[in-house]
Amino acid sequence: MAKFELFKNGKAAPILLEDNGVFGLEKMTGIFAKDIKRVTGVTPKVLKELPKDEFVIYVGVCESKTVSEKLAGYIDLSKLKGKMEVYGIYILEDVINPGQKILAIIGSDKRGAIYGMFSISEKMGVSPWYYWADAKVKRQSQVVFDESICRVSKEPSVKYRGFFINDEQPCFGNWAREKFGSIRPCPELYEKIFELLLRLKGNYLWPAMWRSDFTLDHIENAQLANEMGVIMGASHHEPCCRSGQEFQTLRRDNPQYGTDWSFLSNAEGITEFWKDGLIRNKDFENLITIGMRGENDSYLMPEDATLEDNINVLKKAITKQKELIAKYAPSEHPQLLAIYKEVEDYYFGDENTKGLKDWDVLDNDIMMLCDDNFANVRTLPDEELRKKPGGFGMYYHFDYFGEPVSYLWINSSPLTKVWEQMTMAYDYGIRSAWIVNVGDIKNQELPLSYFIDLAYDFDKWGTKAINKTDEYTLQFFNKLGFKDDVGVQAAELATEYTKWNGRRRPEALHHDHYHPCHENEARHILNRIYEATEKSEDLYQKVKGTDLEECFFQEVYYPVNAVAEINKMQIYSGLNELYAKQHKTKANEYAKLITECIERERSLTDEFHTRNNGKWNHMQSVYHIGFTHWNDEQCQLPISHYVNPVRDPRLIVSVVNQTDYTWAHRWTRHVLKMPLCFESNKLGEFEVANGGLRALEYHIDWEGDWIEITDLSTGETLSKNEAGRTDVSNNYKVKILKDKWDHKPNAMIRIYVDNGEVVADESENCTSVPVVEIQVEVSTLDLSEVKENCFLEGNGVISIEAAHCASNKSSKLAEYKEIKGFGRTLSGMKAYPQNIRFDNTEDAPVLSYKVFAAEDGEYTCQIYAAASNPVVYHGKLSIGVAANGADRIAVNTIPDKGFDPWKSASWRVGVLDNIHVGECKLALKKGLNEISLSAIDPAVVIEKIVLWNPNTEIRKSYLGPKESKNYIL
Amino acid sequence: MAKFELFKNGKAAPILLEDNGVFGLEKMTGIFAKDIKRVTGVTPKVLKELPKDEFVIYVGVCESKTVSEKLAGYIDLSKLKGKMEVYGIYILEDVINPGQKILAIIGSDKRGAIYGMFSISEKMGVSPWYYWADAKVKRQSQVVFDESICRVSKEPSVKYRGFFINDEQPCFGNWAREKFGSIRPCPELYEKIFELLLRLKGNYLWPAMWRSDFTLDHIENAQLANEMGVIMGASHHEPCCRSGQEFQTLRRDNPQYGTDWSFLSNAEGITEFWKDGLIRNKDFENLITIGMRGENDSYLMPEDATLEDNINVLKKAITKQKELIAKYAPSEHPQLLAIYKEVEDYYFGDENTKGLKDWDVLDNDIMMLCDDNFANVRTLPDEELRKKPGGFGMYYHFDYFGEPVSYLWINSSPLTKVWEQMTMAYDYGIRSAWIVNVGDIKNQELPLSYFIDLAYDFDKWGTKAINKTDEYTLQFFNKLGFKDDVGVQAAELATEYTKWNGRRRPEALHHDHYHPCHENEARHILNRIYEATEKSEDLYQKVKGTDLEECFFQEVYYPVNAVAEINKMQIYSGLNELYAKQHKTKANEYAKLITECIERERSLTDEFHTRNNGKWNHMQSVYHIGFTHWNDEQCQLPISHYVNPVRDPRLIVSVVNQTDYTWAHRWTRHVLKMPLCFESNKLGEFEVANGGLRALEYHIDWEGDWIEITDLSTGETLSKNEAGRTDVSNNYKVKILKDKWDHKPNAMIRIYVDNGEVVADESENCTSVPVVEIQVEVSTLDLSEVKENCFLEGNGVISIEAAHCASNKSSKLAEYKEIKGFGRTLSGMKAYPQNIRFDNTEDAPVLSYKVFAAEDGEYTCQIYAAASNPVVYHGKLSIGVAANGADRIAVNTIPDKGFDPWKSASWRVGVLDNIHVGECKLALKKGLNEISLSAIDPAVVIEKIVLWNPNTEIRKSYLGPKESKNYIL
Repeated sequence: MAKFELFKNGKAAPILLEDNGVFGLEKMTGIFAKDIKRVTGVTPKVLKELPKDEFVIYVGVCESKTVSEKLAGYIDLSKLKGKMEVYGIYILEDVINPGQKILAIIGSDKRGAIYGMFSISEKMGVSPWYYWADAKVKRQSQVVFDESICRVSKEPSVKYRGFFINDEQPCFGNWAREKFGSIRPCPELYEKIFELLLRLKGNYLWPAMWRSDFTLDHIENAQLANEMGVIMGASHHEPCCRSGQEFQTLRRDNPQYGTDWSFLSNAEGITEFWKDGLIRNKDFENLITIGMRGENDSYLMPEDATLEDNINVLKKAITKQKELIAKYAPSEHPQLLAIYKEVEDYYFGDENTKGLKDWDVLDNDIMMLCDDNFANVRTLPDEELRKKPGGFGMYYHFDYFGEPVSYLWINSSPLTKVWEQMTMAYDYGIRSAWIVNVGDIKNQELPLSYFIDLAYDFDKWGTKAINKTDEYTLQFFNKLGFKDDVGVQAAELATEYTKWNGRRRPEALHHDHYHPCHENEARHILNRIYEATEKSEDLYQKVKGTDLEECFFQEVYYPVNAVAEINKMQIYSGLNELYAKQHKTKANEYAKLITECIERERSLTDEFHTRNNGKWNHMQSVYHIGFTHWNDEQCQLPISHYVNPVRDPRLIVSVVNQTDYTWAHRWTRHVLKMPLCFESNKLGEFEVANGGLRALEYHIDWEGDWIEITDLSTGETLSKNEAGRTDVSNNYKVKILKDKWDHKPNAMIRIYVDNGEVVADESENCTSVPVVEIQVEVSTLDLSEVKENCFLEGNGVISIEAAHCASNKSSKLAEYKEIKGFGRTLSGMKAYPQNIRFDNTEDAPVLSYKVFAAEDGEYTCQIYAAASNPVVYHGKLSIGVAANGADRIAVNTIPDKGFDPWKSASWRVGVLDNIHVGECKLALKKGLNEISLSAIDPAVVIEKIVLWNPNTEIRKSYLGPKESKNYIL
Repeated sequence: MAKFELFKNGKAAPILLEDNGVFGLEKMTGIFAKDIKRVTGVTPKVLKELPKDEFVIYVGVCESKTVSEKLAGYIDLSKLKGKMEVYGIYILEDVINPGQKILAIIGSDKRGAIYGMFSISEKMGVSPWYYWADAKVKRQSQVVFDESICRVSKEPSVKYRGFFINDEQPCFGNWAREKFGSIRPCPELYEKIFELLLRLKGNYLWPAMWRSDFTLDHIENAQLANEMGVIMGASHHEPCCRSGQEFQTLRRDNPQYGTDWSFLSNAEGITEFWKDGLIRNKDFENLITIGMRGENDSYLMPEDATLEDNINVLKKAITKQKELIAKYAPSEHPQLLAIYKEVEDYYFGDENTKGLKDWDVLDNDIMMLCDDNFANVRTLPDEELRKKPGGFGMYYHFDYFGEPVSYLWINSSPLTKVWEQMTMAYDYGIRSAWIVNVGDIKNQELPLSYFIDLAYDFDKWGTKAINKTDEYTLQFFNKLGFKDDVGVQAAELATEYTKWNGRRRPEALHHDHYHPCHENEARHILNRIYEATEKSEDLYQKVKGTDLEECFFQEVYYPVNAVAEINKMQIYSGLNELYAKQHKTKANEYAKLITECIERERSLTDEFHTRNNGKWNHMQSVYHIGFTHWNDEQCQLPISHYVNPVRDPRLIVSVVNQTDYTWAHRWTRHVLKMPLCFESNKLGEFEVANGGLRALEYHIDWEGDWIEITDLSTGETLSKNEAGRTDVSNNYKVKILKDKWDHKPNAMIRIYVDNGEVVADESENCTSVPVVEIQVEVSTLDLSEVKENCFLEGNGVISIEAAHCASNKSSKLAEYKEIKGFGRTLSGMKAYPQNIRFDNTEDAPVLSYKVFAAEDGEYTCQIYAAASNPVVYHGKLSIGVAANGADRIAVNTIPDKGFDPWKSASWRVGVLDNIHVGECKLALKKGLNEISLSAIDPAVVIEKIVLWNPNTEIRKSYLGPKESKNYIL
């Protein structure tokens, strides 16, 4: 086996790079040489002539002289030639000089060669993230490759793959100013960005444009991109190689193009503006954005313009743009029209007005579709549209500044969601360009890597590779340097915090989202957070002081803990408000915790900004807590409520998971209810709280012997009339014992106050005793006839995770698959192939569930589904629902009318809550029932099915009822 | 001049008290002798035979042997004989033994003699309150009277005068248990109560009955009352000398009378119960309550009973009672029926059902009418009814346990209100019996004294003695020992805190009553409180260590400061909530103040309970803060809100007296408005507040030179662009200068943030600047034609204190008089005589007001009137309102329908707010207008007139707009 000693005994193999006419390869080879130095400490020579050394690295493209003249005979060039961005890596021995070993990196084209070099870099241990995430490069004493390094890469799955630096104030911008001298990024900074893009095997970039003009600021930026092989684009409202700010900048300083950004009132000036942009950038590799929108992401025409008016002005502008491109930038420049926001209407038109899709002028251009800014793709092309030669693109978001609530801070894009949406896009033919808004780059390392890898190698990570996002995440952390158990746990933690953010983004989270008591939601979420943060602490101790520390802090510790503090703070705030409303002094404990969270979150930000010699100063400085508007203006920390306790002990009791509460005095108390069921929920809990300054003394008595009460602080079972005492609150578990049951439907638990406050008419000689009564209402389900596993009704509800079906029946056309970890709770169920519709029941795959209802009646059935958009313009997201073999009801999980991505309230609620809930009524019979769900529309991912007993009030909570007890035979 | 040396050179004159057949006079003379000892240190001898001493005190009644045989010639007995409760005091020389001087105290009857003795006691300096309010008796080295002591008293104005110890838990009851061994008061305690009653010149008592049975507990209680000359009654639902609890007590221990308190199901048992009560108490002086109500102050019959059913069962019961009284208590026992709550309906009946008023069986009994439990008398007898020989009584409240909100704690009865209501009652013929519920006695010392003095000497304090309540209060404090300036200030402070409570009782006060910013209400109330509490501190320092200290603490210092702390706490809480809503960190200062108020109020209670050797332990222990129900169960201290500040400075600005506020960022800010007028309100104020942790820096600029801005913390005038800095908040006064005005209607004040937080899209290169704009909207009133004083519109409102009329025109029948200090603000205007109605405009007295309106338009006119009740059953409280000589509109200050004392929402709101607001529309013309108010219904006391410009939104506040500027020529 040939071995190639890239570095051994202090010597680095030199690099041969001929004059090959590929502009920029020299620069990139220089970067590659630096990578070798990073690993070995030695910079290899870069030579134009082949040296005599035993080990030589060769970098070239198919057309390079050495390749065609010397190497062609030894390698199968047909695998490279005419391909896009492919590279071959070969170890060749004795092919030119005897005994000489050549590591040949041959690109089908320039980017192919670059990707080839960077693939060697990665193999040596240089992460694409060595700079941006401080993935420290491990110094190697030798670098020797065997033949396993040799390979020919595939062509990328998606032609243009890249990201968009956006919304870059205050983090990226202030960081850039401090580190690179200006918030308008200079070539030194762009070099790092281009490098990252190329190392990730992307090729396409939308530059920062909030407060900077890429080419106008520094023509060298554009030149450098061209040199490094980065194809520049521009965002949806920046046509003709002109950034969005440019017109404003010029208007202010030198209004040579007039002052109106209008193709109606200032067509001439605008035309000149575009023309000069094209002339300026014509020699660089560009994917030219065409079309026109208003300034600053706004509408082009006044509100009262008709659809036709808008389409016409857009056509006029595009016609002019194409004319200018043909005349002034005649080399082969592909073009792209972004179908963003209102442009979607102009693209599709309506019954009376033909849209741009029917305008053949655009047939050869990339139609860049968009998500709804919240990672849900909008309308996807039907079969007819997919035939257009220009193909389709997708503009996706990991960061967004806009309505309903911006998110500029942390990674809040679960990979399962990205996978689900982007594979669907791909399956719908969106394969020409993928670009993702990554805000400041920082914090988006994981999803950005994933997005580009998915675009680069769809076979590996795409539709067929279901449930590989965990594997991807683990690989991501492994490649950053986290091996073995540390890698596994780091990956788990990253998935975990992203899951929290995938439920609700920190900016949009307030104290009233997670319910402080229903479904014990606050408690469950908190426990999960406590567990993760503890794990992150343990792990941090392991990596502290090692090369991994900085990267761990940035990629795991900071996001896990910062997001945890914000979640905790808001949940504590919900609990604080609830307890304050109930005048329990326990509220004050939560008030303290809120402040602790705020302080800890701040100190984490400080740490991020100061550690590592302040390398990432400013990068977490954007507001990210409690937005009260769509943007961060006047975002609010919670208001803490402080209960001023009364002087004497005051008993206040509630049943845990209910908001109801009572006190003990005769005129104002009421009986609390605790419904329990032997089969489905035989455990209850109540809280004895104090509203006073002094410790409360009480004793607890109850009827019947079939109730068992346990003091949760001691774990001990109570005897009747056992005394208790609390400064703040004590919790008690109630268990019902079927073998001791006396068949009475109710029994009373009584909590007597022993040293409580005395009110005016409750004093000596008064027969009224201060006491709280909890009525245990017991029910039983007769399961004797049940012959199958089933979910049991408890507390008036049956809740089932979608994946927990009794059967999953595929049709001839399709089948349901589980996307593990997807969505807000357990997972999601989606029908595959994902680009077809099932109008006929018989064509549809079917999930069925067994449930045991406590009563005959019209149950309310709620289907929780992902907050996707219909793939059809103004379409639906229906699913068929049926009980016990009846005809299926089509339940639309969005409103039949008026669901309007980017506009309607239903859409806004959906993208913030990350869920749609469809609802129907189902007639159930007491006992066993079968509920079946069958696919109708594509893009529906079912997460949960909930059935409410008609006699039960639907309880508000964020995630819906926890899964019911599964009765297993 | 004859001088009588009661005590001189260590010798006290002996007292001659013959065997005169007046049972109890011996005991009372003994008490009088003790008074002499209190003053002199020497107990005088009480002898049955005349001694030879030079100075002898004689106590007797007209019929006494010595009087008729020896003294008759020297005194005019006709002034005493046959009179009720009259006494004569004479210094007689040489009438029996030569050289012997006799101080003769001769009563027309037993109570006359007792009052006579106590009048001497008071002259010697023994206050009726020596025990109950620790009015220390000053030791005298000699007691010598000249002839000025001699007088013959008047007959009392009201026949039965007394009080009702009620709602006596937990204060009086627990105190009684600690000091006298039981919450069921024993004779030792009743002796102190009887003494107090008699010293005050009362004669009639309803004993404590919450947890005690006066006669059943101790027959000695009843015997002692009889001995001491106290006429016992019982409350409205305790007929036939049986206390309300008695039936329950007996039912529990020995149900000899059955168990149903029902004259339907248990007529026999109830009859026996009554009979035995009458037999038991027949020999004592009683005013026997007749009639029947349900147990515990409830209805007698089920809800579905008709009016007739109720009347009939009541008649049946009364018939039986009268039969029993005639048979078993045949001596002359007057009888009384209380027309309380629902009994009012039975008394008046309706169109179809004759009420008890038409039942002649009751003609000779006292019909005891009632107030509405909140010190507003209900229906008063018309002329026809007044002819009934039995006469009428009034059951009045200084303390109440019931809906809408109980008040059991502090004196909340302004004397002006008591005067206004009780003189009206008297003028309507209510002269037979006055009784007042005084709760625990403690805290009610002043109004109780006043109530009985008013009943005793109506000529001196009644209708003709308008505006003498201040004089009374001063006299009250003088008699307690507070002389000169200390007396004056003590009286002022007592009036002041009562005024606060008269606006709203502490129990019913919450954080949302006084408005935190409108009309600057919170600030004005707070300033008045600060002033009073400071004064109380100064005064306390003066009396500290003197004999007056204890009494001062109880009568002035404690009530002023405890009430102040509660008012402050609630106002701070309102401010805390407002500031928290606005996310200003100033909220946190108020949170701290709330806690301080709570702690101080608690320490005052502790001090009351522990000082003075704990003599008054328990007396302030009743809950008295923030009732959330009609009673004290779960009364609540305020919830304090804590603003968790953001890290960077955050500017938040508001115009003082508006709730509106804004911050400085572009997407969410708005322009604040500050309407000013050169003539009516040329001063404005704004607040620059911080919502962040670090100090905020800013600068202020404004347009025009006619605006002058002053920093209120320094008092210095700002120059343009002057910098400011604040950790929490700074306030600025804005003044408009007419002489510099450029005739522009608006000018902008701008507050620029200099070091504030930076939001995502407001960073370098952004044109948006963080700034707050306040638009000063200036207007001017053309007063050039005005030839009269008038009130000017300002901020869209004209507000006038009722007393500030331009003219007060009496009619032939009546005139308006000002009751100074009455009501919630300045005073009240009421038409006198107060027992007539003015159906014709020409009969009515008229008040007229001059106002200057800013615009032509339909102004809303609000009439603020006392929360009285109509004197006519289901009547109105109308007043005539007219503008500029138009016909008067009858404005009813209560709803035309459904105003139902004790029941309706309008009544409930009225008695808690202590105001009724009537409303009408008035067409005003721009410029000068005359508004006239003319009397219609009796019982209307006008406090304030408010006119709202039709273009102005009516601003919520508790007391209504402050009085407008009075333009004086």
